[in-house]
Amino acid sequence: MKYSQTFIPTLREVPGDAIIASHRLMFRAGMIRKLSNGLFAYLPLGLRCFRKVERIVREEMDAIGSLEIKPTVVVPGELWKESGRWDSMGEALLRVKNRVGADFVISPTAEEAFTSIVRDELSSYRQLPLSLYQINTKYRDEIRPRYGVMRGREFIMKDAYSFHTSEESLDEHYQAQGRAYRQIFKRCGLTVIPVKADSGAMGGSGSEEFMVESDIGDNTLLLCKNCDYAANVEKAECKSDYITRPSPENARDAINTPPVEKIDTPEVKTIDELCTFLKTDAKSFIKTLIYKAVNVETDLSSAPGCKNLVKNPTATGAPVSYNEAFFAVAIRGDLDINETKLAAVLKAAEVSLAAEADVVRITGAPVGFAGPVGLESVPIIIDQTVTGMNDAVTGALEKDKHYRHAVCGRDYNAWLTADIRTVKAKDCCIKCGGELYEKKGNELGHIFKLGKKYTDSMGVSYLDENGKSHVPLMGCYGIGLDRTLASIIEEHHDEQGIIWPVSVAPYHVIVIPIKYQGSVQEACDKLTCELEEAGAEVLLDDRDERAGVKFNDADLLGIPWRIVVGDKNLANGMVEVKRRSEKEAHLISPSEAVTEIAAAIKM
Amino acid sequence: MKYSQTFIPTLREVPGDAIIASHRLMFRAGMIRKLSNGLFAYLPLGLRCFRKVERIVREEMDAIGSLEIKPTVVVPGELWKESGRWDSMGEALLRVKNRVGADFVISPTAEEAFTSIVRDELSSYRQLPLSLYQINTKYRDEIRPRYGVMRGREFIMKDAYSFHTSEESLDEHYQAQGRAYRQIFKRCGLTVIPVKADSGAMGGSGSEEFMVESDIGDNTLLLCKNCDYAANVEKAECKSDYITRPSPENARDAINTPPVEKIDTPEVKTIDELCTFLKTDAKSFIKTLIYKAVNVETDLSSAPGCKNLVKNPTATGAPVSYNEAFFAVAIRGDLDINETKLAAVLKAAEVSLAAEADVVRITGAPVGFAGPVGLESVPIIIDQTVTGMNDAVTGALEKDKHYRHAVCGRDYNAWLTADIRTVKAKDCCIKCGGELYEKKGNELGHIFKLGKKYTDSMGVSYLDENGKSHVPLMGCYGIGLDRTLASIIEEHHDEQGIIWPVSVAPYHVIVIPIKYQGSVQEACDKLTCELEEAGAEVLLDDRDERAGVKFNDADLLGIPWRIVVGDKNLANGMVEVKRRSEKEAHLISPSEAVTEIAAAIKM
Repeated sequence: MKYSQTFIPTLREVPGDAIIASHRLMFRAGMIRKLSNGLFAYLPLGLRCFRKVERIVREEMDAIGSLEIKPTVVVPGELWKESGRWDSMGEALLRVKNRVGADFVISPTAEEAFTSIVRDELSSYRQLPLSLYQINTKYRDEIRPRYGVMRGREFIMKDAYSFHTSEESLDEHYQAQGRAYRQIFKRCGLTVIPVKADSGAMGGSGSEEFMVESDIGDNTLLLCKNCDYAANVEKAECKSDYITRPSPENARDAINTPPVEKIDTPEVKTIDELCTFLKTDAKSFIKTLIYKAVNVETDLSSAPGCKNLVKNPTATGAPVSYNEAFFAVAIRGDLDINETKLAAVLKAAEVSLAAEADVVRITGAPVGFAGPVGLESVPIIIDQTVTGMNDAVTGALEKDKHYRHAVCGRDYNAWLTADIRTVKAKDCCIKCGGELYEKKGNELGHIFKLGKKYTDSMGVSYLDENGKSHVPLMGCYGIGLDRTLASIIEEHHDEQGIIWPVSVAPYHVIVIPIKYQGSVQEACDKLTCELEEAGAEVLLDDRDERAGVKFNDADLLGIPWRIVVGDKNLANGMVEVKRRSEKEAHLISPSEAVTEIAAAIKM
Repeated sequence: MKYSQTFIPTLREVPGDAIIASHRLMFRAGMIRKLSNGLFAYLPLGLRCFRKVERIVREEMDAIGSLEIKPTVVVPGELWKESGRWDSMGEALLRVKNRVGADFVISPTAEEAFTSIVRDELSSYRQLPLSLYQINTKYRDEIRPRYGVMRGREFIMKDAYSFHTSEESLDEHYQAQGRAYRQIFKRCGLTVIPVKADSGAMGGSGSEEFMVESDIGDNTLLLCKNCDYAANVEKAECKSDYITRPSPENARDAINTPPVEKIDTPEVKTIDELCTFLKTDAKSFIKTLIYKAVNVETDLSSAPGCKNLVKNPTATGAPVSYNEAFFAVAIRGDLDINETKLAAVLKAAEVSLAAEADVVRITGAPVGFAGPVGLESVPIIIDQTVTGMNDAVTGALEKDKHYRHAVCGRDYNAWLTADIRTVKAKDCCIKCGGELYEKKGNELGHIFKLGKKYTDSMGVSYLDENGKSHVPLMGCYGIGLDRTLASIIEEHHDEQGIIWPVSVAPYHVIVIPIKYQGSVQEACDKLTCELEEAGAEVLLDDRDERAGVKFNDADLLGIPWRIVVGDKNLANGMVEVKRRSEKEAHLISPSEAVTEIAAAIKM
């Protein structure tokens, strides 16, 4: 391809909102242009790279037997109502009414569409396992799109959905997808960190995220200095520390603990102030917060204070669900509650701190004096750290009053005990006890075991060998292609521009004539032709520009090989070959250049 | 690919709404499934064919130097407001508001997006001509989607847009696109009829549609029995017949015509009754209808009755436009007014017959007595047939009254004379005078010269050699991929199923073992392997089904070659090869089969 015949509008300047390298470089190299906030057009050069990422993803999906289909981008709202996500998805779901008033969704993900297709075709266990995927346009109405295609509103996702008769079969495909993902990222030249992840709004259990380290990452990862443990903070666990669990010593301590005692704590507002006042530390304090949870799928029929909760109407067979419910959530004073873990424990769509009025109503005291002792209006959930606190200070449900000497099981009872602690750097690895540290990460891919969430709610079934009906298990597996492409640039660039891995480079070689005329022009044309015959994709910079401009653009575009053809070297039968990733060029004959490059791109 | 490892849910029955062959067969062959009215999912087999059509289109676009880009599917409404189509497009445009209240459009076409991208990058004439295309999702909120993917709501279109400094340059690319289209349809095995077409809502002039003949076609085509003239009825012209134009004889006739005379025509309601009453024929009658036109871009400042028309607010430089205006439109009594031609003449977004109250207000008489003589309240537009009618009967703007002996130019004056006649079968070809006949057609592709419609309204400019600013000319070129695919099936099928042209077949060969076991299995595996090595795409029917079922499915799927492998023939070193398009099978050795097929698919 001749440079003059394509459309690569390179730029020196970038818009002010282009903060990260990939956004800046994609813009400067003429790969993308902005149509609107979070909406980007790929120009020819960007699309070439994009298609290479797409091809790698497609090949790896095909290799594990997933079958490509193409549902629509605009999907009937009816399907989302069946799954329940019409209501439970927030405003990120772009909903549309058409001219006759029918509801539609611009797909942000496609569990519903795939489940509906399979539902209509599935009859026998012999059709399973079945794995289907698409590579298609998605839309999420991000409230704050930024970082270019790294977090756009419209993007292309590969999303696969698999259907199974057993946990083993689901796990087998889940593992195959995981291997395919590792292969995809490796072929793209990306260093990814696979981490245990919470499955969030997607429902189900068993999931892994593929992260790249990034300063602007949405996710906090906890990694072990000692072993390969890596987890999203939303799901990260850690080893219990000394007062976390009831031990024989603790049990003895509890016996020796004096009776619970209400004390005056005037003008004491923070945990720090309380610790000073009582000459103790935060680890002796039970922090209790009142939470509101929405769309709770845990059975609360026998939970304290829940008798009059209103149940949501649900489809037959779907689990019971409560529109909203309140909980007192207690944790050791030096720790934080992990709301994602809490929501998962409650099977709630969302949890958030209760409003002040609700706190006053539930605790009978102003905000700041909640505690488990004597609290009967809502269920008490305690982090597992609290079970071992055998001489604790806690709020007394009364202004300027606290209890001390509170013992779990003696002075109060938990409705539920669970791991709802936010793990932090310096906590101990759950696997090996090593020290954990934090990184920021961006999610490129995600694999989930969904279980029966969608197949249940949407009524999918098959008959087994004995003619008995079952609901299949389901998995889902997504990769964001735009974000993958941007992440490649994040990992492979320098001050001058992009440094493409060969696998995703827009062209393999850029041929630069010092001046595109006479014998240099002939030599360039011949070289381009020979390179192309050898399987290389070549950009011939035939522009009437100064050599310096061409060199700068070549560095910016990041094409792996640069061949400079000039009169002087050509007189000696030589051209100058330089890899974008290396500093030094070398002089070789054009035919050697062809041989060298042809061999390298075949690797 | 083994049949058991893909997902081809073939069916014997089809849903009741599948009327046409392609819809029925795509459904039965497991190529598509319906998600909702007008929304279809491609399953693996359908997607394979779809991708082949896509590849052919892409190759031909690349071959003429058009460059692929990828704008978004969800496009800012702002751009559509700039072009004016936010208002002028009807309800087929799916408009969405996002969470922060911004307007978006689900692209039905992309003039705005492409124009906006080019606007931001264009500075010099040296960047032109520039042709860009996308192959991307489109949505049109069809009020009555039907015939499967032939007229769906969501579909994939290849749309190209080109930008030029001169008419010659635009014409050169327009011709290249036309040649590429012919090549695309030829490679797809389609017989298309290129027809002159009105450019409708797209604006501009100079356009050609690529039609396939179809009983359920949206379009009426007029073709000449004698020459290659072909036109959409919306644009078709014909040779004038004997009284169409003023001739020396006609001029003499006019001199001899008696003065115009008002006559009583009691109880006469139709043209037929009037003809009987006056003992004349419809060709002597001037039919006059009152039309309402909206968004009229013709200058009406000096037209009769138009002084007080309200002008629409328009951007600087944009042509004047009137929200609505009324016209009296006259044509010879035996002919019909072509509303598309009328709208084009008036540069109106839409024309429609005026409401009864408007007719009464404008003509001062009940409906049925309009006529040009004495009419001053609105501009009079006459078809060119009327100019030569030198002794005509026409309504007298009074109940139960008509004029006779009306002469154009003597008794009334036209504000505008134009060709606004609907051409019909048996009219005379404008090129050669031959007889025209009608066909129904479906549009697969359309190429337009848009002129400056979008570049003007959206403010695109470039500087010429002398630093002078100009607005570029623009062309646009679309092909519906889904409809193209369906049309291939319409043209290539029989009672048993599809008969794919090799170029777009989902697989080249289906290998059918009578029973997939023992030596037959071995032979099938080996044959499949050798065929694949020779470049053929093979579907191996490894299912545990009766041979009859497999044969029927093979016919239904329409794969070009079928190779049946059975014990008996195999014992003689033979397999049975049959082309889907032929009746007879022949016995040859497996290696001969490989050679034969490899040679054929390379052609």
